[in-house]
Amino acid sequence: MPELRKDPIIGRWVIISTERGKRPVDYEIPAPVVSQGSCPFCYGQEHLTTPEILAVRPPDTAPNSPGWQLRVIANKYPALRVEGELEKSGEGLYDKMSGIGAHEIIVEMPEHNRFLSDLDTPHIQNILSSYVSRMQDLKRDARLKYLMVFKNQGYRAGASLEHSHSQLIATPIIPKSINEELAGAREYYDYKERCVFCDIVKQETVDRRRLVLENENFISIAPFAARFPFECWLLPKKHESNFENSTPADLALLAAMLKETLLRIKASVNNPPYNLVLHTAPCQISGLQHFHWHMEIMPRLTRVAGFERGTGFYINPTPPEEYARFLREVQIG
Amino acid sequence: MPELRKDPIIGRWVIISTERGKRPVDYEIPAPVVSQGSCPFCYGQEHLTTPEILAVRPPDTAPNSPGWQLRVIANKYPALRVEGELEKSGEGLYDKMSGIGAHEIIVEMPEHNRFLSDLDTPHIQNILSSYVSRMQDLKRDARLKYLMVFKNQGYRAGASLEHSHSQLIATPIIPKSINEELAGAREYYDYKERCVFCDIVKQETVDRRRLVLENENFISIAPFAARFPFECWLLPKKHESNFENSTPADLALLAAMLKETLLRIKASVNNPPYNLVLHTAPCQISGLQHFHWHMEIMPRLTRVAGFERGTGFYINPTPPEEYARFLREVQIG
Repeated sequence: MPELRKDPIIGRWVIISTERGKRPVDYEIPAPVVSQGSCPFCYGQEHLTTPEILAVRPPDTAPNSPGWQLRVIANKYPALRVEGELEKSGEGLYDKMSGIGAHEIIVEMPEHNRFLSDLDTPHIQNILSSYVSRMQDLKRDARLKYLMVFKNQGYRAGASLEHSHSQLIATPIIPKSINEELAGAREYYDYKERCVFCDIVKQETVDRRRLVLENENFISIAPFAARFPFECWLLPKKHESNFENSTPADLALLAAMLKETLLRIKASVNNPPYNLVLHTAPCQISGLQHFHWHMEIMPRLTRVAGFERGTGFYINPTPPEEYARFLREVQIG
Repeated sequence: MPELRKDPIIGRWVIISTERGKRPVDYEIPAPVVSQGSCPFCYGQEHLTTPEILAVRPPDTAPNSPGWQLRVIANKYPALRVEGELEKSGEGLYDKMSGIGAHEIIVEMPEHNRFLSDLDTPHIQNILSSYVSRMQDLKRDARLKYLMVFKNQGYRAGASLEHSHSQLIATPIIPKSINEELAGAREYYDYKERCVFCDIVKQETVDRRRLVLENENFISIAPFAARFPFECWLLPKKHESNFENSTPADLALLAAMLKETLLRIKASVNNPPYNLVLHTAPCQISGLQHFHWHMEIMPRLTRVAGFERGTGFYINPTPPEEYARFLREVQIG
């Protein structure tokens, strides 16, 4: 059983994945690149994965056989496990709990060598809808406190399989970065009686120097204190704390904006590896006045992550106003 | 002038380095590897750097000429600048300040192809002493709130020059990760009336499963909630909040422990890239009862940094007890 351990100084929880148990010697063997023929996420290899939890496929195709457009499966090597009791315990001054949770993979498309941004908008909408469905389902488990949706695109961004996929990790705690956003946004709200994200949407829509894209329901911006060159945030214009409350109409507009933002980044800086994370309210809570869900896209163009690890301090060599202008002006397809 | 900008949600400050001003097209050109012949940190190339601020060299050698054991110089491309006024201003809902600070490089040795762990203990002690000297000097500038000492070893850890060096960045704000440690440690102290780091030292010294090394004044441990495989922390046994108060005797013992910890990591996992950061109290404050300086060594063996960026959530595939045992038992030199 994996274990969750709490840092006694800053309260950050870490998953200690005892089952995967890498021995020191394992680090010397470079991870194999899974080629198209043996990729478990490709058409015809469905037997290599755990059974599908959800799929978009024509009604005349059988589960776990080809024909699908996207599949959601349980991770074969989960960081956390659904089975078991949530037990909390101490060890001297330290705190830990059993590694209860879920770890699912959204295989975004059957083709091995395509990118999320290559898909048409309705297909991307289906991927976003699959996040919503899985979140709606998992939030019924009261042991789960947070549902983390993210995507690592490219080897340097941490992807262990190159076939395009997203992940959903459900945790029995709220991750530190979300707790920080909740606390910071609450402080702002207590002082101003306004949502800080709504204020950001307003200011960026008027100012326009950091605006990358705008449609009826969403904006895509270069954030004022961007940590990374070409970092972009997608925010709904209308206040909503929980992503899983998005309507199909919202998701269609979000899909279009996500595709175009990714295409503009790809065209600007030669298809960089990136991480995409969804920040939404904890799954047992909804209707928060001070919190506003959003998506963060972080291209990996700089190598400074090491220093940031220890200090929480970022140096961004490209002002957001500058790369936002570039993203607006770049020619795509 | 570089600019410090504050994230309006979580309060994280970011340096927006407008002068270095990388244009989008710059990201497509891979950074050149500086070879031994043209390295500005090598013997005989002293004219390629800014004038030395401090050096360990025989009295019969001239500044900025060969003969030195280590040199401290100002970074030619500083993230922050000493000149100018510290001006704070707003921009709508956002906050920023001028990028006042300092950015120095500690060139640890004249040889291009040696590692910190290859040096003898007195030489490493001189490096640690140079940190102390520079910190003592810089803290006299009341505009500076924090002195960050860190080292990126290896390209994958973010080093832009391969010649072994450390860096010191002085900032007009306290970095987020230090603020978090200060707040968490204060909370613990308010509740228990004891320093959390002192409690960690006590528990680890008795428990011994996560203890890597121990000498008269220091311990080297695998932290209970380690984020990374082979992450090690070095802590003084005696309570002290400020690193720059270390005596020469302390630094000699710390140098010996740092060397041996690095050698044991190197022998265990084939000389990995790593980051080393010094966490100490803000430079305008001393004598804190609840905070305790320490060093964190973070080898870069996993590629999960991308996901962590967005969530603050870490998955460590190797339990600290397991790699601590390996580090204790591995044969070195």
